[in-house]
Amino acid sequence: MTDSCPHVVILGGGFGGLAAARELADAPVRITLIDRRNHHLFQPLLYQVGTAGLSAPSIAAPLRQILRKQANITVLMDEARAVDTTARCVHLGQGDIGYDYLIVGTGATHAYFGHDDWASRAPGLKTLDDAFAVRRRVLLAFERAEREDDPVRRQAWLNFVIVGAGATGVELAGALAEIAKHTLPREFRRSDPRMANVLLVEAGPRVLPAFDEDLSDKARKQLEKLGVQVRLGTAVSAIDEEGVQLGEQRLQARTVLWAAGVSASPLGVSLGAPLDRAGRVQVQADLSLPGHREVFVIGDLATFTQESGKPVPGVAPAAKQMGRHAALRVRAMIQGSAEAARFRYRDDGSLATIGRMAAVAQFGKLKFSGLLAWWIWLVAHVYFLIGFRNRLVVLMDWAWAYWTYERAARIVTGQDRESAPSTGESSE
Amino acid sequence: MTDSCPHVVILGGGFGGLAAARELADAPVRITLIDRRNHHLFQPLLYQVGTAGLSAPSIAAPLRQILRKQANITVLMDEARAVDTTARCVHLGQGDIGYDYLIVGTGATHAYFGHDDWASRAPGLKTLDDAFAVRRRVLLAFERAEREDDPVRRQAWLNFVIVGAGATGVELAGALAEIAKHTLPREFRRSDPRMANVLLVEAGPRVLPAFDEDLSDKARKQLEKLGVQVRLGTAVSAIDEEGVQLGEQRLQARTVLWAAGVSASPLGVSLGAPLDRAGRVQVQADLSLPGHREVFVIGDLATFTQESGKPVPGVAPAAKQMGRHAALRVRAMIQGSAEAARFRYRDDGSLATIGRMAAVAQFGKLKFSGLLAWWIWLVAHVYFLIGFRNRLVVLMDWAWAYWTYERAARIVTGQDRESAPSTGESSE
Repeated sequence: MTDSCPHVVILGGGFGGLAAARELADAPVRITLIDRRNHHLFQPLLYQVGTAGLSAPSIAAPLRQILRKQANITVLMDEARAVDTTARCVHLGQGDIGYDYLIVGTGATHAYFGHDDWASRAPGLKTLDDAFAVRRRVLLAFERAEREDDPVRRQAWLNFVIVGAGATGVELAGALAEIAKHTLPREFRRSDPRMANVLLVEAGPRVLPAFDEDLSDKARKQLEKLGVQVRLGTAVSAIDEEGVQLGEQRLQARTVLWAAGVSASPLGVSLGAPLDRAGRVQVQADLSLPGHREVFVIGDLATFTQESGKPVPGVAPAAKQMGRHAALRVRAMIQGSAEAARFRYRDDGSLATIGRMAAVAQFGKLKFSGLLAWWIWLVAHVYFLIGFRNRLVVLMDWAWAYWTYERAARIVTGQDRESAPSTGESSE
Repeated sequence: MTDSCPHVVILGGGFGGLAAARELADAPVRITLIDRRNHHLFQPLLYQVGTAGLSAPSIAAPLRQILRKQANITVLMDEARAVDTTARCVHLGQGDIGYDYLIVGTGATHAYFGHDDWASRAPGLKTLDDAFAVRRRVLLAFERAEREDDPVRRQAWLNFVIVGAGATGVELAGALAEIAKHTLPREFRRSDPRMANVLLVEAGPRVLPAFDEDLSDKARKQLEKLGVQVRLGTAVSAIDEEGVQLGEQRLQARTVLWAAGVSASPLGVSLGAPLDRAGRVQVQADLSLPGHREVFVIGDLATFTQESGKPVPGVAPAAKQMGRHAALRVRAMIQGSAEAARFRYRDDGSLATIGRMAAVAQFGKLKFSGLLAWWIWLVAHVYFLIGFRNRLVVLMDWAWAYWTYERAARIVTGQDRESAPSTGESSE
C-alpha cells in the first residue's frame, strides 16, 4: 500500500461508513475514515442506555479497535465541516484533506420542526450524550417526585410524554413503563412510581408506521397492556418547563422526550446537490452525487427512491447496504469500469421491540408479534452487535434484568442545567 | 416502625454511611440517608473507569436499590449544606430535616495545596464525573498526538504526568503504561503510542507511603518494569496548559492527573468542632462530636488518632468500621447506655495494585508482592464489590482485558472545555 494508491475518504463511522471501509479492506486504496467521535455506536440499542438498561461501553466500540487489523485504513478523530467537490477536498476542524473518492455518511439528527427551543426541553436520542441526558432526566424525575409534597406537582414529575411513535418512541415508552411499574416501586417510601403515566403522542394515525397496519395495531395493544397511554392523531403544539400542549389539552409533565423528525447532517448542504425537506441529499441511482461520480452519499444523509416508488428507509441495514454498494462502485471505477450499477435495497425485514416479551416483526408477508417477535428481535440485535465481548455483556445484562427487573445502569452522573439544580459536580 | 421512633439521619452514602445504615437495619429507629448522588460508588476501582477498563455502572449501584429491603430507611437525593447542632437540624438544598441522632460521612475530595487554578488543568479522581474527565483526556491525548506533525508538540501529547504516588497515583500510572504499551500500539498509523512517557511524581521519599519501606521499594521496581518513570522527592511548582514545572526542570506534558492531597467535605466546618489542616473533624474517642454525643463523624471526614499514636487511614475498611461503630453507639444510647465505647480500628491489611500481575499486599508482618499480591488484590476487590451482578461483569471485563489487552470502556463522550475543542455534542 503506497501513497500512489487512490485515496478514499470516508466521512462518518456509523453503519454505512464502517461497511464501506470493510468492503475496501483488500482493495488497492488508501482509506481515511473520519469521525468526530472515537467510537462506532450501535444506535438501535441506544434507547437502552437512555433507560438505564445498558452501560454505554456495551453498545459502543472504538473505531480504531474495530478497524485495527485493516492495514489500508487510517482513522482520524475530527469534524468534517464542508466538502469542496471542485478541489476534491474536505475541510476538517483541523486542516484539510484531499480525496480521489469520497463516501459521505454523516447521518442525521432529530428535527424539532422549526421549534429549536424545544431541544433543551425535550432531548432526543441520537448520541451517547443524548442517552445520558435522557437517563438523567428520567431517574431524577422519580427523585423529584419523592421530594414533592404537593400531589399535583408530584404527579407532574411522574408524567412522561414521548413525542413520536416510530421505533425509538415505542421502545422508550415500553422501557419507561417497565421502570415505573416493575423496577422502582419497592425503592421509594413517599411517592409511588406506579402512579407514573407514560404517554406516547403521535401526530400520524398509527404507531410504527413502517410496519403493516395490523402490526401497528398489535404494537399499540401491547403498549397499552404494558401501561402506556397511546394518543394518535395528536400534534404537540407547545412544550415548556411545566408540560405540553396537545391540541386543546394542557398536560402537566416535567419530562418530555423527543422521538420525532429527521434532520440530515449539515454537511449535505456543502455538497451542492438537491436536498429534500429534511436536508437529505438526492443521490443518483448508483448513490453518487449528481455531477460527481467520485462522491457517494449513504445512510441517513441520502434520500433514495426505489424502483417500487418507496424510499429506502433510514435504518441500519439500509445504511450498511449503501456503504457496501458505494465501496463496490469505488472498486469498479479503480478497475476502469464505466458502468454505474444501480443501488438496490434488499429489505431483510423490520423489527421493533416494545417491552418485556413484546415486539413486532415483519419479513415480507411473514409477520410476528408478542413473545416470538421479541425472541427474534433479541437474537438479531445481539448478533449484530459489534464485538464478541459486547454481545456477552449485553446478554448478561438482559438476562439479569429479565429475572430481577433491576436495570444495570441506574447511575446519574454529570449536570443538567435544565432540571437538576441539586446535583453538584464534586464528591460526597 | 412509627414516627415516634428516634430519627437517625445519615449524611453520605459512601462506605461509612452505608455500613451505619445496615448496622441499624433491625433497630427501633427511623433512618434517613441523604446523598447528593443517587449511587454508592466503589471508589477503590474508580481509576479503572478513568483508564477505560470498566464502565461506570460496573462500580456503582443506586443507593435505593442497595437498601430497598431495609424497611426502616428512607433515601433522599439532596445536598447537605450545613448542620445546626443546636437545633438538631440539617439544612438541605431543598428544605431542612431534624434529627435525634446524626452520622456524618460526607467524605473528602483532593486538595491542590492552595493552587485551586490547577484543578481544571489536572483533574483528580473522586467521582464518576472525575473519572469520565480523566478518561476523556487520556484517550483524546493519543488522538491529538496522531494529528500532530511536529515531533516536539506530538511528544507533549504523549507525556503523561501523575502527581502523587499513593494508591490512586500508582494505579493510574500502571494502567496508563499498559494502555500505551499494549492496548493502543496496533491502532495508530502515524504516531506510536509506545513513545508515551508516564511520569509519576511524588514529593515524599517513596511510593505507597502507607506500606512498609521494602514494599514501597518493590512497588517502585514493578512500576519501572511496566515502563513508568518514578520521580521521588520532587514537588510540582507549576502546572499550565503546556506542561509542568518540577523544581528546576520544565516538562512539556499536555496531560496531568492529580492524585495528591486530601480536603475534607466543607460540611465539617458547620459542625463547629476543631478541624485538622485538611479540614477533617477531630472526633472524640467514640467518634462523637465534642459536646454533642448524638452526632458522629465517620470516614474521610473524621481524623482519629489510635492508641498507638497512628492516625486511622482514609481507606474503605476504616470508613466501614467507623460507620458500624457509630451505629452501635446510637443503638446503645437508645437503650439507655451512658458508656461511650472507644472506637478501635482493626487493620485488615493493605493492598495496592500496580498493573498486570503486579501489586503489593501487607497484612501485619505478612507481606506479598508481584503475582500473588495481584491475585489477593483481585479476589478482595471483586469480593467487596457491591451486588452480585457487578462482580460478574467486572470479572468478565477483567478476564477479557487480560487475554486481549483490550479495554472495555474506551468511549469518549461529552465535552471538555480544556482540551477537546473538536468534539461536538451533536451526532455524526
